[in-house]
Amino acid sequence: MTESATGRPLRPLTESFPSSAKVTVGDLQVPARDIRLTNGDVVRVYDTTGPQGCDVRQGLPKRRQPWIDARRQRGDTNFSQMHYARRGEITEEMRFVAIRENVEPEFVRKEIAEGRAIIPANINHPEIEPMIIGRNFLVKINANIGNSALGSSIEEEVEKLQWATRWGADTVMDLSTGKNIHRTREWILRNAPVPVGTVPIYQALERVGGVVEDLDIELFLAVLEEQAEQGVDYFTIHAGVRLPFIPLTADRVTGIVSRGGSIMAKWCLAHHRENFLYTHFDRICELMQRYDVAFSLGDGLRPGSIADANDAAQFAELETLGELTKVAWEHDVQVMIEGPGHVPMHLIRENMDRQLESCHEAPFYTLGPLTTDIAPGYDHITSAIGAAMIGSFGTSMLCYVTPKEHLGLPDRDDVKAGVIAYKIAAHAADLAKGHPGARERDDALSRARFEFRWDDQFNLSLDPETARAFHDATLPHESAKTAHFCSMCGPRFCSMKITEEVRKYAKQGMQQKSEEFVERGGVIA
Amino acid sequence: MTESATGRPLRPLTESFPSSAKVTVGDLQVPARDIRLTNGDVVRVYDTTGPQGCDVRQGLPKRRQPWIDARRQRGDTNFSQMHYARRGEITEEMRFVAIRENVEPEFVRKEIAEGRAIIPANINHPEIEPMIIGRNFLVKINANIGNSALGSSIEEEVEKLQWATRWGADTVMDLSTGKNIHRTREWILRNAPVPVGTVPIYQALERVGGVVEDLDIELFLAVLEEQAEQGVDYFTIHAGVRLPFIPLTADRVTGIVSRGGSIMAKWCLAHHRENFLYTHFDRICELMQRYDVAFSLGDGLRPGSIADANDAAQFAELETLGELTKVAWEHDVQVMIEGPGHVPMHLIRENMDRQLESCHEAPFYTLGPLTTDIAPGYDHITSAIGAAMIGSFGTSMLCYVTPKEHLGLPDRDDVKAGVIAYKIAAHAADLAKGHPGARERDDALSRARFEFRWDDQFNLSLDPETARAFHDATLPHESAKTAHFCSMCGPRFCSMKITEEVRKYAKQGMQQKSEEFVERGGVIA
Repeated sequence: MTESATGRPLRPLTESFPSSAKVTVGDLQVPARDIRLTNGDVVRVYDTTGPQGCDVRQGLPKRRQPWIDARRQRGDTNFSQMHYARRGEITEEMRFVAIRENVEPEFVRKEIAEGRAIIPANINHPEIEPMIIGRNFLVKINANIGNSALGSSIEEEVEKLQWATRWGADTVMDLSTGKNIHRTREWILRNAPVPVGTVPIYQALERVGGVVEDLDIELFLAVLEEQAEQGVDYFTIHAGVRLPFIPLTADRVTGIVSRGGSIMAKWCLAHHRENFLYTHFDRICELMQRYDVAFSLGDGLRPGSIADANDAAQFAELETLGELTKVAWEHDVQVMIEGPGHVPMHLIRENMDRQLESCHEAPFYTLGPLTTDIAPGYDHITSAIGAAMIGSFGTSMLCYVTPKEHLGLPDRDDVKAGVIAYKIAAHAADLAKGHPGARERDDALSRARFEFRWDDQFNLSLDPETARAFHDATLPHESAKTAHFCSMCGPRFCSMKITEEVRKYAKQGMQQKSEEFVERGGVIA
Repeated sequence: MTESATGRPLRPLTESFPSSAKVTVGDLQVPARDIRLTNGDVVRVYDTTGPQGCDVRQGLPKRRQPWIDARRQRGDTNFSQMHYARRGEITEEMRFVAIRENVEPEFVRKEIAEGRAIIPANINHPEIEPMIIGRNFLVKINANIGNSALGSSIEEEVEKLQWATRWGADTVMDLSTGKNIHRTREWILRNAPVPVGTVPIYQALERVGGVVEDLDIELFLAVLEEQAEQGVDYFTIHAGVRLPFIPLTADRVTGIVSRGGSIMAKWCLAHHRENFLYTHFDRICELMQRYDVAFSLGDGLRPGSIADANDAAQFAELETLGELTKVAWEHDVQVMIEGPGHVPMHLIRENMDRQLESCHEAPFYTLGPLTTDIAPGYDHITSAIGAAMIGSFGTSMLCYVTPKEHLGLPDRDDVKAGVIAYKIAAHAADLAKGHPGARERDDALSRARFEFRWDDQFNLSLDPETARAFHDATLPHESAKTAHFCSMCGPRFCSMKITEEVRKYAKQGMQQKSEEFVERGGVIA
């Protein structure tokens, strides 16, 4: 809206969120944002914006370093949160998210131990403010960033990261495929207060000059090691694209639309061999436990159109992801499962139900899903519908879709539009799930609206700037911010104003009836 | 996006929809739009744009005039489509919508006779291209236009009407409350190829100088007569806001948010009497049947916030609307029922289920509902989620919400954003309901996407201009329109390109296996 071009520095956070103050809670300094209202109330909201004003070349403070050092000093070798949770240990990360989500630390530990939730937190990414992904917690959203061969600079990507977390991204995925892939990732990690995910097969393919047939497990493990060393918190790995499933995609309208999925399918066919990520899955787990990198088991065979939703290929892969989940859990490696894609509304619930059953309640992490294919340019909306629904059914994290999906690279405006649409979907899902406290902000905003506290209404919204700008477009004067009507109805027709009068009348009426009752002798007829 | 300011003339339709041709079908000249693809295919879509290039001072051609004249000449006095349907007559309007919806005329007649569908078609609005609202037909959308005391001119309103129908509005409501209310409506009616609805209480209140207490049934009937004479196709009438229900709103977070509802509540309390629209409902029906104006029974007590959803006040009114539906049907007056508003996702289905039961399957017409209150500036999205859901459950028409909802008057961009968001919701609902043929456009677009027919992908979309502009933002050259990759992945990582290779491989593989099989002697092992 107001910051459309990339390349310009971001304005300070306080300009995006007037009358807000970043605060920290407890000894672990858990971040939150307090929105101060004109009536003296304070509404505290979840905050993903991270430390502000740091030099991007220095990166963020390494707040988890002492916690990790202590574990190293005592000689730990498996650093996964699941490992600690299963042996009954409540880590600082678990305490941190317990405060952030307003639940008991023991509850967090149990959910992680049982695989229903994950805290993606590589020991080499000490800058993060830990967060949890699981269906008994707030629904989270992910924003994809990253350059491609065709554009965008490192500075732009860090800015996109900051911009995405400003508006509420809970994790980001660096999907870079172009030049400087290692350096881009380094900048992003050192400046990311949220977990960072990647799709390592992209870098592996760069290493072999784009020749899919030349990929192998040794090369792939080397890439994983490099990225794990840098601090990537979760890896999308397409180990479920098995050789026998590939023919199941032959009659699809849109074939294989996952980049990683299509790479692995090509490799399998070229060699007439089973996917090496599947056959060497144990080795991958052993590597990931040493850093506590979590799996995001990729849905390489997800549908790319309404026509292909919920087909045999998709569900065959889902079964395999469930099988691999058990293997990962044997290594105490945390797992979430990726999901579609493009799914019409009536087929969404089946995705959730089958995922829960096939994948033993590991958290589900879906891309949308888009509920129709006919609106390129508006796929943040086609998919927010599906995302809200699948979130309400139990999906733990929603991967955003921007208005540029299928068309081009998202710029700053697109990233914001995608993040806001997905904050809406996630919050609508939290409300539908009856998440404790989720309605507080809605109620505070509605009360502000009813009482004509315009500034409070703006400041409580997901995007105060836009709300204020839209109001100012019709009523620019400062006096309108306290006026007891708005531009849509004008003073005479304002229902809220009339309601106030109705209440006054009703009160008088009741008093009158009460007086009549007393006059009649106070006997109930 | 590209036509942001009001006041500038609209560009020709062909610029908004390249490679499309308006066509007419059959002897009744039912409109449609043919999208011509580069592979020779033609995809025919529903068209609401109406005749183009007419002088707004002359208005549109009066295509229904001969049909109506014939009925007058034979001495009809009840002109309602329901009246004809119940006596077994298939009108031209019914035949028209049967062609438009690709169903049998007899099916249309039966749905109307039984009250499950309506064709809003005032005999004094001969300019319309008839359309049908009912849950066994395509889900429709309404766009609100109309000036308020604070802005907007008549020319602007006609332009908003044309703009709304260009992007797909199936009906419009003229909610004008300001000056020139009669003349604005006249211009809108004479230029509207779609049914026009109004909320007559607004004009009634203007007549009494804004003094709610001075309203009465005689004045109200005079306003109805004036508007019916002009050709208004449906009236929102808040006859369900009964005196005993008003105290039920006392503890709400946002009280009464319907303008009409709050006016009637104030009247009831001021006089300590029952709502005159309720007590004189028969007289209203008698007037409306003479013109075939349909009821949109207003939900004056709809919730205005998540907190107030599905409460006693809302459902008490809904029961009354069901009671009034039966009364209207005794007069053969067509009825639809208005619904909320603000409803969290998990409470949406109850709205639909109770409406069907309480209101005897009369079509439901909802405003959104908004699924959260925390995103002013984005309520086209918060509400598209709810609209898609309630549409899939059986709501027949969805009243759009623009990004300016709660904040200000929508301009041209807002109208377009609202209409597109609601076309998405309505179409997603059609897909979910398994409406015959609904998926055809999705499949055509997905095939175009898979085959890198970029122009076809743009032209098949709800908003070709925006899709094309987003693509051009990264790859502006004309050669990119036929390139077998896009800017998101670049040539090396394009999954669709790889899928093509996968299919080639798979084909070779099968052939090879087949040859091996023959070599081995053709015996199945």
